[in-house]
Amino acid sequence: MRKNLPEKITLAHGSGGRLTRELIELLFLRNFSNPALARLEDSAEVALGRERAAFTTDSYVVSPLEFPGADIGRIAVCGTVNDLAVKGARPLAISAGFIIEEGFNALRLSKIVRSMKAAAAEAGTPIVTGDTKVVEKGHADGLFINTSGIGLIPRGVNLSCKKIKPGDAVIVSGTLGDHGIAVMNARNSLGFSSAIRSDGAPLNAMLAGVLRAAPGGVRLMRDLTRGGLATALCEISDASGLSVEIDETVVPVATATGNACRMLGLDPLYVANEGKAVIFAAAADAAGILSSLRKNKYGRKAVVAGRVVREAKPQVRLNTAIGGSRIILPLEGEQLPRIC
Amino acid sequence: MRKNLPEKITLAHGSGGRLTRELIELLFLRNFSNPALARLEDSAEVALGRERAAFTTDSYVVSPLEFPGADIGRIAVCGTVNDLAVKGARPLAISAGFIIEEGFNALRLSKIVRSMKAAAAEAGTPIVTGDTKVVEKGHADGLFINTSGIGLIPRGVNLSCKKIKPGDAVIVSGTLGDHGIAVMNARNSLGFSSAIRSDGAPLNAMLAGVLRAAPGGVRLMRDLTRGGLATALCEISDASGLSVEIDETVVPVATATGNACRMLGLDPLYVANEGKAVIFAAAADAAGILSSLRKNKYGRKAVVAGRVVREAKPQVRLNTAIGGSRIILPLEGEQLPRIC
Repeated sequence: MRKNLPEKITLAHGSGGRLTRELIELLFLRNFSNPALARLEDSAEVALGRERAAFTTDSYVVSPLEFPGADIGRIAVCGTVNDLAVKGARPLAISAGFIIEEGFNALRLSKIVRSMKAAAAEAGTPIVTGDTKVVEKGHADGLFINTSGIGLIPRGVNLSCKKIKPGDAVIVSGTLGDHGIAVMNARNSLGFSSAIRSDGAPLNAMLAGVLRAAPGGVRLMRDLTRGGLATALCEISDASGLSVEIDETVVPVATATGNACRMLGLDPLYVANEGKAVIFAAAADAAGILSSLRKNKYGRKAVVAGRVVREAKPQVRLNTAIGGSRIILPLEGEQLPRIC
Repeated sequence: MRKNLPEKITLAHGSGGRLTRELIELLFLRNFSNPALARLEDSAEVALGRERAAFTTDSYVVSPLEFPGADIGRIAVCGTVNDLAVKGARPLAISAGFIIEEGFNALRLSKIVRSMKAAAAEAGTPIVTGDTKVVEKGHADGLFINTSGIGLIPRGVNLSCKKIKPGDAVIVSGTLGDHGIAVMNARNSLGFSSAIRSDGAPLNAMLAGVLRAAPGGVRLMRDLTRGGLATALCEISDASGLSVEIDETVVPVATATGNACRMLGLDPLYVANEGKAVIFAAAADAAGILSSLRKNKYGRKAVVAGRVVREAKPQVRLNTAIGGSRIILPLEGEQLPRIC
């Protein structure tokens, strides 16, 4: 069935779930059709003379701007670094575009800029170009930041959904849902434990280590932002034509985050992260990759969370704690608006 | 005198003039210090393996979204293509980040996306990666678009303020101020002639022709956006340590735009363009460059508008029609907010 454009854009079109995908297909793929875009990966590959560049963009509209563990500046830098790193690229440079609401406190802006500086220094990736726009009071919500990034894809690195094979291991780099719950807690003053902190972190050093640990064994890496692990796995299953099976008892969720999710009726598999990745790799390389991940401070809780299987109808399945299984679908509607 | 951060961000900080420069220095250069950023050029040069990449970003907040001659989509694509092209780079890929206000009409969005498609096709530069965010009604003004771009800087091309020499010709590629006046006319229903249309255009083919016409003779190119020709020349004079002298009688201004400027008390030298460039080149190459420019539909009105001179105190000077001269200063305050 050919889908039609909706009449109006809704918050759910920005969720990162099914409706975002639908809008992208109806509007952007149809108009901007080209092979790099069509892959809909975290970053696009661009032939740049004799080299291969990775290129990515993200706008950040998170509300509030500051929350435990990070702020809009830190996640803007980390998100773009991670979109390059999951492609196997070495991040080389970041841009920063600011849209500021008139009257915004300059010291607050300065604090956010310093947070970007610290994240960029941690990632070893300079912010080399920028842009500043100011709109009248009431025409934006404080501050929006766009970051784009370019990286160098090393020779021989070709990560892709198409490389995934039945039997591959599905590795998750750490606890899920911390970022989404930390932002929601800060926004709504829910009063959950202050132990729930955003995981916003640059993963480039950790993921470069993964590639070194298993040369040729890594099929695909994906960072787990809007829509969480569940939506990422659905997209990967869809693109690879293979099923993915994950085990509820091993998927890592921090106790405080898990408790908050239960009280709010949220599934941590769908909640956004800003410092987590899923790695698809040959099963024989899983142990080496895990040991490499766990040496990095952002990968200490990494686990093999599941595996790839070939089935007549590709799907994502969760083997539950009580021995059953349920189908995982992409995020439907909008769970937590403005999470990044 | 060391300047201090203001208390609040004002519209003038987004003008592209003196206060924008001050904010960039206080906030961004101080924190993100690196050689590429410090040059504050239209795009930054990034070493990418064996190649040199140009990298640039711009956020577009123009109001209204549609105006005679162009719309936010066209200028978002053209502005980024032009920032790469003035660096002598071949634009290779563009990103598009959308921040959409909840409730925005999807057909209107679709029309703007098609306008981006047409501009990208004209520039021969694919849109390869994107991002979509939606914010609640009242938290943005319809639509903001960020475009970033990467290009390949050909071997031997090294345009820079530092290359400018006394005696160089200052070439302006066409009429000034049309974009700013077209937007202002549309925004305020001023009722000026509908002949005043935005000049939004991709200049990459035209500027590549300029480089071919004068290999080695082109010192610097700059596109003339916020702050207009006046602000660009002030920045170039400042960075090169040389004076620039331009002749009022030859600077091209369309009749309708000039009349509108007089009625509004605006100086077209300060009004924004989205399809004009200034080119600094060896005087001996000026004729060849002019003839190359005039062959392109966006350069038919190109002229040699002035020259570079060495003086004790570098400044920008306008030789007026009545035989006098006046000093040109960078744009002060905010003349026309949200022009791009």
